[in-house]
Amino acid sequence: MRLHQFAQSPNPRRVRIFMAEKGIQDVELVEVDIRAGENLSDAYRAKNPLGVVPTLELDDGTCIGESVAICRYLEGIKPEPSLFGSDPVSQGRIEMWNRGVEFNVLLQVAMSFRNLSGIFADREKTSKEFGEISLERLAQGFDLLDRRLAETEFMAGDSFSVADITALCSVDFASVVKVPVDDQRPNLQRWHQVVSARPSAGA
Amino acid sequence: MRLHQFAQSPNPRRVRIFMAEKGIQDVELVEVDIRAGENLSDAYRAKNPLGVVPTLELDDGTCIGESVAICRYLEGIKPEPSLFGSDPVSQGRIEMWNRGVEFNVLLQVAMSFRNLSGIFADREKTSKEFGEISLERLAQGFDLLDRRLAETEFMAGDSFSVADITALCSVDFASVVKVPVDDQRPNLQRWHQVVSARPSAGA
Repeated sequence: MRLHQFAQSPNPRRVRIFMAEKGIQDVELVEVDIRAGENLSDAYRAKNPLGVVPTLELDDGTCIGESVAICRYLEGIKPEPSLFGSDPVSQGRIEMWNRGVEFNVLLQVAMSFRNLSGIFADREKTSKEFGEISLERLAQGFDLLDRRLAETEFMAGDSFSVADITALCSVDFASVVKVPVDDQRPNLQRWHQVVSARPSAGA
Repeated sequence: MRLHQFAQSPNPRRVRIFMAEKGIQDVELVEVDIRAGENLSDAYRAKNPLGVVPTLELDDGTCIGESVAICRYLEGIKPEPSLFGSDPVSQGRIEMWNRGVEFNVLLQVAMSFRNLSGIFADREKTSKEFGEISLERLAQGFDLLDRRLAETEFMAGDSFSVADITALCSVDFASVVKVPVDDQRPNLQRWHQVVSARPSAGA
């Protein structure tokens, strides 16, 4: 298998951590220079019409794009340890919090970063006004995670799951807009230290 | 089971169609007046800290929020007919396109509608500038679906899946910003007629 990725982006990191937690090692990493727009080329879009990284290319040429979709495939071929839940309630709860983190934190980091920095201004319109709004929502998203982690050890309950991987990559990515994890949000900080100490965090 | 929902919103409709496709009928619908902000009340947030509709409440009081998370739970308790895929590749592909539709269409409808109409201006800041940008992206999202549906019968391949439910609800929701499905995008139009004719579409 080959993972087409951009190493510094949060979404490819989600897949690398997922693979590390699963013990999946036989994956070649292929860099796609998204700053140069390589992900928008015809060659890349032939693999992934969505034009985003990462994309997993199987040995038979089948391609699956989107980080969570790739993780779903990997969960299917290597179910243990389960990171999407092993019964209907835990599956629902993990999906709920994975998405809650995506909309309330990851999306807000992306929207504030792209609109305020103009990093992709050569290929997309930006709005500083909306970037500022997104930055406020990001702070509220961090508050949401802090309240949640006052009640549970991990994002979706008692066990580490894909929702923790999404949260770790999202929270770390927030450094690009200078929103830190610190003692203003002690529950988030406690959890962040725990998940950052797992060997997979360095993947 | 009880589904806390707002009937006109696209996300509760996704769950209702999913239930209809599964033949799940024993669910009481409870209206939550999101225009009046009932979803932001302490009572609602106790059920769903994300403060969004829909939320599925099980008979033992367990609550699961987020439309796709609820669908995951329902797939777990009633696996057939499978709407999330029955093997790792189809599971990955369905997740890929479900998310592709969400980001490229549903999110763009929501962003253009909320920022341009100011429907929630009493509780959130808006940016007309970003609303206009989102409207352009929505048109590009429709183009993406049209190109995809030139190649495949349904969004994720040969079979109807949750990605088609997401796409139907997203495309129909785009009427609020006056982006129609018409013969400018013949493949999308062909698919729209097929999925709209399924009995579940009226759920």
